[in-house]
Amino acid sequence: MSTTTSAPPHGYTPEKGRLLKRLARVEGQIRGIAGMVEDDRYCIDVLTQISAAQAALDKVALGLLDGHTRHCVMGASDAALREERADELLAAIARLMRRG
Amino acid sequence: MSTTTSAPPHGYTPEKGRLLKRLARVEGQIRGIAGMVEDDRYCIDVLTQISAAQAALDKVALGLLDGHTRHCVMGASDAALREERADELLAAIARLMRRG
Amino acid sequence: MSTTTSAPPHGYTPEKGRLLKRLARVEGQIRGIAGMVEDDRYCIDVLTQISAAQAALDKVALGLLDGHTRHCVMGASDAALREERADELLAAIARLMRRG
Amino acid sequence: MSTTTSAPPHGYTPEKGRLLKRLARVEGQIRGIAGMVEDDRYCIDVLTQISAAQAALDKVALGLLDGHTRHCVMGASDAALREERADELLAAIARLMRRG
Repeated sequence: MSTTTSAPPHGYTPEKGRLLKRLARVEGQIRGIAGMVEDDRYCIDVLTQISAAQAALDKVALGLLDGHTRHCVMGASDAALREERADELLAAIARLMRRG
Repeated sequence: MSTTTSAPPHGYTPEKGRLLKRLARVEGQIRGIAGMVEDDRYCIDVLTQISAAQAALDKVALGLLDGHTRHCVMGASDAALREERADELLAAIARLMRRG
Repeated sequence: MSTTTSAPPHGYTPEKGRLLKRLARVEGQIRGIAGMVEDDRYCIDVLTQISAAQAALDKVALGLLDGHTRHCVMGASDAALREERADELLAAIARLMRRG
Repeated sequence: MSTTTSAPPHGYTPEKGRLLKRLARVEGQIRGIAGMVEDDRYCIDVLTQISAAQAALDKVALGLLDGHTRHCVMGASDAALREERADELLAAIARLMRRG
């Protein structure tokens, strides 16, 4: 049901720079967590950083959901496409709530 | 309440290699997600990968919780220390459930 | 930003019977959990039932999200109202992901 | 792996009254949510109450985890039983994180 369009943009395109900045930060957080494990840092401190990375990832997901809902779902050209995209959106939300 | 001991090991030390491998995979997943955003990939596909990265990060957290519970909490030398570590553990679990 | 309309229906109205059945089941699950605590049942068994109740409550939330997205958000009469409802929807999703 | 002991108490027994009070409140919240659906209340308002009920259920779960960790896991009489209970505890935490 997923389509890769050869012609962007998608709903998140205006936000693209901000999303990429956030993802770069999450990547750094993961590297930092790995460094803590390498250095045998106290377990609880590592877990605190993991929680922070999860929260940051959630922010990225919500940013994507936001753009997608407004542009790709609500802005879809015809009723059938809107229905299909609403299906996909709800499935994605369910996965995010379930964490996987 | 956190202490960095100059002398490991911690509860996760036997699992260290496995945790580091998992974290490296998560780091790769985040880079992959950034690449998808760069390439204007379909929002839902990006969200699917975010869910996968979160599930993987949860696995790391559970691995750390496991080792910490068995060694640092249950194996603590005296009752007062065990109580203190139980406090920390429950707080960490609450943060993981709350996602941040 | 919330409005109670004196004239339904909302997006979930066709699903109303199913949602009420689900909520009745969750209510029964909660009573069952209280009974287990009353009877000093083993902690882990009680926790298993709590997880089940949470999963059931999530299903209700997703059912509401589904109807709301399709009818109240996408079906809103003008662009400004659609924007406002998209704002509310995203905020609700964020709360569900954060568990409160 | 679950055992019902004929002779309480469990780790949560001192907290029993508080847990039952909390569960009674959650039960009331669920009934309230059903009432809102019956009355065709605005979807977002219902979702807000669901998030509140989920947060309250999480508090009950954490209270049980707390007592169980301190008494049933850490306080277990021999090493093999402690290991078994640690296994169960970690599995319960994983389910709570996964919401089901």
